[in-house]
Amino acid sequence: MIDVKDLFKNNYIEKEVTVSGWIRNHRKQKEFGFIDFNDGTYFKNLQIVYDNSLDNFEEIQKLHIGSAITAKGKIIKSEGAGQSIEMKLSSFVLEGDCPEDYPIQPKRHTREFLREQAYLRMRTNLFGAVFRVRSVAAYAIHKFFQDSGYVYFHAPIITASDAEGAGEMFQITTLDLDKVAKNGKVEYDKDFFGKRAALTVSGQLQGETFAMAYKKIYTFGPTFRAENSNTKTHASEFWMIEPEIAFCDLDGDMDIMENMLKYVVKYVLDNCPEEMEFFDKFVENGLLDKLNKLINSHFTRIDHEEVIKILKKADVKWEFQPEFGQDIAKEHEKYITEYFNGPVFIKNWPKDIKAFYMKQNPDGKTVAAVDLEVPGAGELMGGSQREEDYDKLVSRMKELNMNQEELDWYLNLRKFGGCVHSGFGMGFERLLIYLTGVDNIRDVIPYPRTPGNCDF
Amino acid sequence: MIDVKDLFKNNYIEKEVTVSGWIRNHRKQKEFGFIDFNDGTYFKNLQIVYDNSLDNFEEIQKLHIGSAITAKGKIIKSEGAGQSIEMKLSSFVLEGDCPEDYPIQPKRHTREFLREQAYLRMRTNLFGAVFRVRSVAAYAIHKFFQDSGYVYFHAPIITASDAEGAGEMFQITTLDLDKVAKNGKVEYDKDFFGKRAALTVSGQLQGETFAMAYKKIYTFGPTFRAENSNTKTHASEFWMIEPEIAFCDLDGDMDIMENMLKYVVKYVLDNCPEEMEFFDKFVENGLLDKLNKLINSHFTRIDHEEVIKILKKADVKWEFQPEFGQDIAKEHEKYITEYFNGPVFIKNWPKDIKAFYMKQNPDGKTVAAVDLEVPGAGELMGGSQREEDYDKLVSRMKELNMNQEELDWYLNLRKFGGCVHSGFGMGFERLLIYLTGVDNIRDVIPYPRTPGNCDF
Repeated sequence: MIDVKDLFKNNYIEKEVTVSGWIRNHRKQKEFGFIDFNDGTYFKNLQIVYDNSLDNFEEIQKLHIGSAITAKGKIIKSEGAGQSIEMKLSSFVLEGDCPEDYPIQPKRHTREFLREQAYLRMRTNLFGAVFRVRSVAAYAIHKFFQDSGYVYFHAPIITASDAEGAGEMFQITTLDLDKVAKNGKVEYDKDFFGKRAALTVSGQLQGETFAMAYKKIYTFGPTFRAENSNTKTHASEFWMIEPEIAFCDLDGDMDIMENMLKYVVKYVLDNCPEEMEFFDKFVENGLLDKLNKLINSHFTRIDHEEVIKILKKADVKWEFQPEFGQDIAKEHEKYITEYFNGPVFIKNWPKDIKAFYMKQNPDGKTVAAVDLEVPGAGELMGGSQREEDYDKLVSRMKELNMNQEELDWYLNLRKFGGCVHSGFGMGFERLLIYLTGVDNIRDVIPYPRTPGNCDF
Repeated sequence: MIDVKDLFKNNYIEKEVTVSGWIRNHRKQKEFGFIDFNDGTYFKNLQIVYDNSLDNFEEIQKLHIGSAITAKGKIIKSEGAGQSIEMKLSSFVLEGDCPEDYPIQPKRHTREFLREQAYLRMRTNLFGAVFRVRSVAAYAIHKFFQDSGYVYFHAPIITASDAEGAGEMFQITTLDLDKVAKNGKVEYDKDFFGKRAALTVSGQLQGETFAMAYKKIYTFGPTFRAENSNTKTHASEFWMIEPEIAFCDLDGDMDIMENMLKYVVKYVLDNCPEEMEFFDKFVENGLLDKLNKLINSHFTRIDHEEVIKILKKADVKWEFQPEFGQDIAKEHEKYITEYFNGPVFIKNWPKDIKAFYMKQNPDGKTVAAVDLEVPGAGELMGGSQREEDYDKLVSRMKELNMNQEELDWYLNLRKFGGCVHSGFGMGFERLLIYLTGVDNIRDVIPYPRTPGNCDF
């Protein structure tokens, strides 16, 4: 058995080969027929042609869409437009039949319908492409960091700390809830970990402990938010990449963010050309231009304060008025990337709207935080230099009424050979939305979990 | 700033360089001194030498163990035994001091003590090596599958199904347990997903849905067991690799298991030679021999029934009597790998002790399941051909009183172009225990979660 991808990428002309896969479409004529065959290793179908010179011609003509077959035949140059090769069938085995009410027919299905058929939707062009790009992009991220000497760190998923407070958390428990209801009390001492535990919202704090040993580390794993949001960009379970780098300031952090993004985009363009062309044609016109431009663009770096000035000067009727000391809205993000005609790092944000661990700038008002805004997608990554000064970090935690004791280990990193260090986070699905043009997070996660939805 | 690894791997002799990292040890003489310097990019320390010709000699001599410094100096050939290079210090900056009560001193600490200092233990030789090997092995797994055309699939972590029943599950909820206790009832319709949800124990069933689209897929993600076991090999949160391959029978499955394992072992030996030598010397004598032998060995393939015959014939006083139709014990695993002097695939297991989805053999008694036993570690992976026959699968589920409706999507895979397919699972930590010789799972996971333990 050979992969269809090999057939397209190497020369098998006039060679007899065997392939196993599925029938995507079947067009029958009186004396011959065409099967669109796909084995999942390649975006394009292999066209299999047959005619009535075969003994079992009638049997072949009965093959259903969706069936699994093993086909044997000779690879020949295709005369059809846009197809380099096809297979002239000599024999086949029906591995598994498929009924005529098979939901995935060779026609246009809505994405909503396919979401309900999530366990089958990878068999369509669109989702076949999305989840291959997901796989290739994930590998590109690993490859970028491993080739640069980073250590991959598996942050814990179950945590007893809710320190980052990045959103509501899912509680995990082995207590029998029916018994809790019956007994009228919650006995955490009898819970699995002897205390309240939850699903992580970020591996950053633990990531810093690894950066203080290996200098350069990254996480790549699932994170969770129990937020009751039903938007195109929110999911309860999603994958995050969180690099953390010792002896690295905010400028160095931005260098890494920029290099990583360009690398991953280029890797996906190089390794999924068929899929990316498909997205460009059928999902987001101009996608390839957008991505090629990104690879070659200079990323602007500008202070939050300067951004507000530009927004205030702009001849635009804002829905939300830009203000010094405030967050910026989607419309502002859009304006700024258009203003600079490319990706923009907005840095040095007002301290009060950012997390406790970010490096406090000498001005007393801002922190060394950065968001990367990209044309057409808004915020793609966020990072910061971390506060390495023990006293400043403690006083910030006190201001925010945070439990210092729970994070003593995190604070200790500042005592035991601490140093300037920085990191950032990228939501993997956000990257995929940007890479594919598919604009709903439910369509770039294999089995999305959102409020009220936990199927398959 | 340059990585210490670069200094060792390339020629910097007589060149002035700058490095940032941490002081592992500091030996002071009256007129000179030696700093063991490590920046986390390389297993070996860089020795930094200095003498009293430097203006700030006294200041240097005060540098504490654990401190972070940036050091500038010339790389010279080392005259010390076993060291290829060292750095002659010209200047330094103290990035972060470290108090004298720093827990990680240059002496032997027990693993139990270091487990309590999990956020610092990566700074020791042992754990520094363990978690680098963890990172490199993870990458090797990705590289093996990606280079072979597999699609990496992120299985869902939160699930509403407990179909596999592989052990007790953690429940996840956003219900306020105090309110549950107060109100005396559990209202799942008000829970986040509108029903009971839990953490996954395996991504296999969803993995099969992807294999039926891409032919070859693998998962690599966290899985969970709420088992109240306090053993060296049990953790509540661990990472699993679960490949799934369409048009592949049990023999093909074993080929992939064997190839993958040999590839990963070789990759780690090639890319972590210093770490592996350290484990061989200080953790498991003979480790390198064991692993090199594995790479070059032929993996025996034998039926479970034949194994029982061998065990019954053996001149050994068993603690557990080997029996046809029964599972085998640790002592049997050990005997069998010694008997064949290498890794052994035990296949065609009694149906009643294996999972519902395994392919039923024509004998009516066994299933096409396989466990890989390796010398010195016992079971390393388990796999099977999956039952592709809809009716047989349904009747097996009925025998086991399983909820068929909940798994209708899984069953449908057998209707919609199903085919012979197989897969396997490997616990990543089990592999690491085998690779490093470190025999406690708590010591190969960055922040282990076990009953009663959920720190950091």
